[in-house]
Amino acid sequence: MDRNLVDTAELADRVRAGDRRALGRAITLVESARDDHRRSADDLLSRLVAHAGDAARIGVSGAPGVGKSTFIEAFGSTIIASGERVAVLAVDPSSTRTGGSILGDKTRMEELARSPDAFIRPSPSGGTLGGVARRTREAILVCEAAGFGVVIVETVGVGQSETAVADMVDTFMLLIAPGGGDELQGIKRGIVELADIVVVNKADGSLESVASAIAADYASALNLLRAAAPNWRPRVVVCSALEKRGVADVWETVLKHREALRVSGRLRARRAEQAQGWMWQEVSDSLLATLRQMPGVAGRLSALEADVAAGRTTPGAAGREILDIFRKGHLNRQD
Amino acid sequence: MDRNLVDTAELADRVRAGDRRALGRAITLVESARDDHRRSADDLLSRLVAHAGDAARIGVSGAPGVGKSTFIEAFGSTIIASGERVAVLAVDPSSTRTGGSILGDKTRMEELARSPDAFIRPSPSGGTLGGVARRTREAILVCEAAGFGVVIVETVGVGQSETAVADMVDTFMLLIAPGGGDELQGIKRGIVELADIVVVNKADGSLESVASAIAADYASALNLLRAAAPNWRPRVVVCSALEKRGVADVWETVLKHREALRVSGRLRARRAEQAQGWMWQEVSDSLLATLRQMPGVAGRLSALEADVAAGRTTPGAAGREILDIFRKGHLNRQD
Repeated sequence: MDRNLVDTAELADRVRAGDRRALGRAITLVESARDDHRRSADDLLSRLVAHAGDAARIGVSGAPGVGKSTFIEAFGSTIIASGERVAVLAVDPSSTRTGGSILGDKTRMEELARSPDAFIRPSPSGGTLGGVARRTREAILVCEAAGFGVVIVETVGVGQSETAVADMVDTFMLLIAPGGGDELQGIKRGIVELADIVVVNKADGSLESVASAIAADYASALNLLRAAAPNWRPRVVVCSALEKRGVADVWETVLKHREALRVSGRLRARRAEQAQGWMWQEVSDSLLATLRQMPGVAGRLSALEADVAAGRTTPGAAGREILDIFRKGHLNRQD
Repeated sequence: MDRNLVDTAELADRVRAGDRRALGRAITLVESARDDHRRSADDLLSRLVAHAGDAARIGVSGAPGVGKSTFIEAFGSTIIASGERVAVLAVDPSSTRTGGSILGDKTRMEELARSPDAFIRPSPSGGTLGGVARRTREAILVCEAAGFGVVIVETVGVGQSETAVADMVDTFMLLIAPGGGDELQGIKRGIVELADIVVVNKADGSLESVASAIAADYASALNLLRAAAPNWRPRVVVCSALEKRGVADVWETVLKHREALRVSGRLRARRAEQAQGWMWQEVSDSLLATLRQMPGVAGRLSALEADVAAGRTTPGAAGREILDIFRKGHLNRQD
């Protein structure tokens, strides 16, 4: 990226005109941790926000081995065939450590990546889940302003990132696959209950009957859970992304879910709640980051954390000591 | 409570000696929102914390109508018969509005309340879930220092309080009952997956076979979820608290769960994580409370929340404006 001041007005215009290079540059700007980039990103987003919000935001979660890339490739192509443009983003806080474990390799989705109606972006690398999540939320807005009608946010099904992704999309899908058992698939507790749609993938050839049996198990399990929306019960759909069977059913189910959300007024309400939650998350993360960066505080924090963990002091007393440190740190700043 | 300074050294001694009046007074102190009480409570807790931590901390959640009081009465009596003393606390943030919807009426558990080995305390009233949760966590420490070997934390199964309670106990139990269907029972999404043990209550007389069928449904649903601990899969137990059948099985299952947690090292690790989480929660809640109380800030916050909800501004930009307000508020304080 240019080291000089970004012309955000021009960049915003080019993003809105659908210029792919501008889109990539805008997302890079949003992802940057540099202070001057951050200010430019804020300015850019303020220009784009009025043109964002129109996409179907879809989360796709699933443990390694369930065929997520193959599914997203087939799913994305199906959506494009129906006339929509699709952006695929990813949330994977582990990508710093592993050097990009998901979507790091764009060639993974070769067919989709070649389509002029698709835009594929790997997970922003570096930083905490909170940081990665914020940058992805802002990237969603940029893609929407660029006219993408569908934004897919992909995540691995093994960490805390599922909750973060479920909190930034309209429809959250969990991908599972026959074989291996769910424990081996590593579905974290709580993830199944986040799902609006469970997709049993890899119903390939002779595996179809196994997949159907698993689908029935999930359908009865989901029936024991309370509906997330007044007029939507989580559905289970069987497909074979490899053989391109059932993928259109998944897209149709997403559309039905959106319609249910829209009719009940939940779509608008959910978006509003999400946006307010992000705002407070931003405030809370920032205050804690300020605290952690105060000189001499890191050592004291570790000691307090150890004392609290060992039961030598109460969480309340330790918390109040941290607040005192924070207040004094702020005082000293004015000296 | 006495308006004068509390002699916390004496109060701590009397709590540790098992003086019930002192125990009640200590919890009232911990629950108080008054600044001088808060300081006394901190002092008291610092004297008690080294003697706390030995109880089995058990959460009991269940929607209205599942027979929670009857169950806790029978369960508590079973535990006392096994030689332990039992404290029952409650988390119900709605008790302010409803005038104490759970445990407000001590006569609800008449038999248990009469036992010298039981201590029953209604939910602290007033304030947010965060406030109620903090006071309950501190009340757990007080009960433990007073020598209670089992602390039961009760909550209604309809709100966010379940997560808060699951985060303060070792074993989280979900009570359900045959009849009415789960949707009517109002089990919130995510609660089933928090459960270490699901108790199907009201297997009374002719309902026993229905209860067993429901238990089988839950058992297979729970099998689809990943285990919370390496050596524990959530179990389902059927009982009739009314007819006092199966309640001892529930207690035995709790003991098995504790043993599994202990053997895997999860008990110690879980307690340490919980304590650190509470500490940071305290810090975060306090900073946000400080912000909200700054003069002139409330109106601006409402406006920003509305703008963010309507998509007129991004959560990030609004969050940063709030942080600016916070920093300026701190600056002005030093003038």
